[in-house]
Amino acid sequence: MILIKLGGSVITDKARPLTPRKKAMDAVARVLRKADEPVIIVHGGGSFGHYWSVKYDMHTEPKKYNPRGVATVKNSMIKLDNMVLESLFKNGHSPYCLCPSAFMSGNRASPKGIREAGEIAKSGMTPVTYGDALWHGQKKTYILSGDRIMTHIAKVLRPRLCIFALGEDGLYSDMKSRKLVREAGSMRASISATDMDVTGGMARKVREATAISRGGTRVFFVNGNKPRRIADAIGGKFEGTLFR
Amino acid sequence: MILIKLGGSVITDKARPLTPRKKAMDAVARVLRKADEPVIIVHGGGSFGHYWSVKYDMHTEPKKYNPRGVATVKNSMIKLDNMVLESLFKNGHSPYCLCPSAFMSGNRASPKGIREAGEIAKSGMTPVTYGDALWHGQKKTYILSGDRIMTHIAKVLRPRLCIFALGEDGLYSDMKSRKLVREAGSMRASISATDMDVTGGMARKVREATAISRGGTRVFFVNGNKPRRIADAIGGKFEGTLFR
Repeated sequence: MILIKLGGSVITDKARPLTPRKKAMDAVARVLRKADEPVIIVHGGGSFGHYWSVKYDMHTEPKKYNPRGVATVKNSMIKLDNMVLESLFKNGHSPYCLCPSAFMSGNRASPKGIREAGEIAKSGMTPVTYGDALWHGQKKTYILSGDRIMTHIAKVLRPRLCIFALGEDGLYSDMKSRKLVREAGSMRASISATDMDVTGGMARKVREATAISRGGTRVFFVNGNKPRRIADAIGGKFEGTLFR
Repeated sequence: MILIKLGGSVITDKARPLTPRKKAMDAVARVLRKADEPVIIVHGGGSFGHYWSVKYDMHTEPKKYNPRGVATVKNSMIKLDNMVLESLFKNGHSPYCLCPSAFMSGNRASPKGIREAGEIAKSGMTPVTYGDALWHGQKKTYILSGDRIMTHIAKVLRPRLCIFALGEDGLYSDMKSRKLVREAGSMRASISATDMDVTGGMARKVREATAISRGGTRVFFVNGNKPRRIADAIGGKFEGTLFR
């Protein structure tokens, strides 16, 4: 089983609010169609949900956020998800949309819901979920990132490989030289990630990747705009950053 | 608390595939905004999901349906749901999208997921869910109707009133005279419904309404194209068919 996160910076143009990158979606969908094993897809919010969560000052910490903000983030994610689902369908997948509430209850993951996603993937359909604004309980809401969802799913289903498709080649040892870290030990990775965080969320991705790889699942950061590299990774050839 | 089902024949043009009726959505959204209590919305599939489920010969009975059909129904429901959510937002609600997998596991409702929807409604947001194609287990899928969802939710949350907004004035005692049944005992209602079933699904709606009203919740069938009647029903004045 392959668990893949399609980064917001791959499927949307983060420099332009509410702008999908449909060609990039199609290219990744085509490559994943060739995988000879079950696939589960998680996608980010990019210039849709992430854009709005910044506008409304909403974060992963549970708080009483503006309900209009929660609704705006959620509606924009449905809109983006619809595009991802259509791209997958057009490129031969039978996507199965699972909103994150299908396997989250407050900020806790439901192993039962995640196992159901695994069954669906094994039946030949492609479960699709996404980062979103979610109900937390006690009148609070929070942002659940697609990166965090990767950890929740990997913990229960233990896929053969987790892939984070990013807008970068992987993790760089420093931003000036843009020298790629090919194998990441957790210490070195977190330092590099902090340097890279001008481009957004890299420290979080490294944190989740480290947690997943500690559980025994290999995690691979790859440039999502070079779908050939995703195909290669599925085949065991890694051009990017590997956590193991 | 008000639990309302927006019928597919209200929010879409059932005579034209994939055609929403956005003005009808807006009109109902405006009326519901005036309700001075929590509201939960369920919507049907009409010329989106229902249209495709007929094309792919998919039913409520769990079977190994065509995965492309399952994906097509699900994607079309996301597309329609997106329109309902936008209409609600535009008309002052803060909708909270809950795909049916949020409170269904196979063909069983999860009381925990439904109670969460109740909490969200009480916080001032408007939970929105919909009929859909769903995973059943053992490689089977099935169609979960919005009508059935009404029964699942009513059973757990016991709303003050359940409303089915239809494309008709209510239940007719026979189709020729179109004489409205104002109060429905279950026997008489099921006979009238069978007569009416050329227009689709009335027998099923009566079955669900009867089940809900037996649990002590009043159920009201109303013409969804006459939103004033929805407002009146919330205020206690019923022009339509009441089950109690």
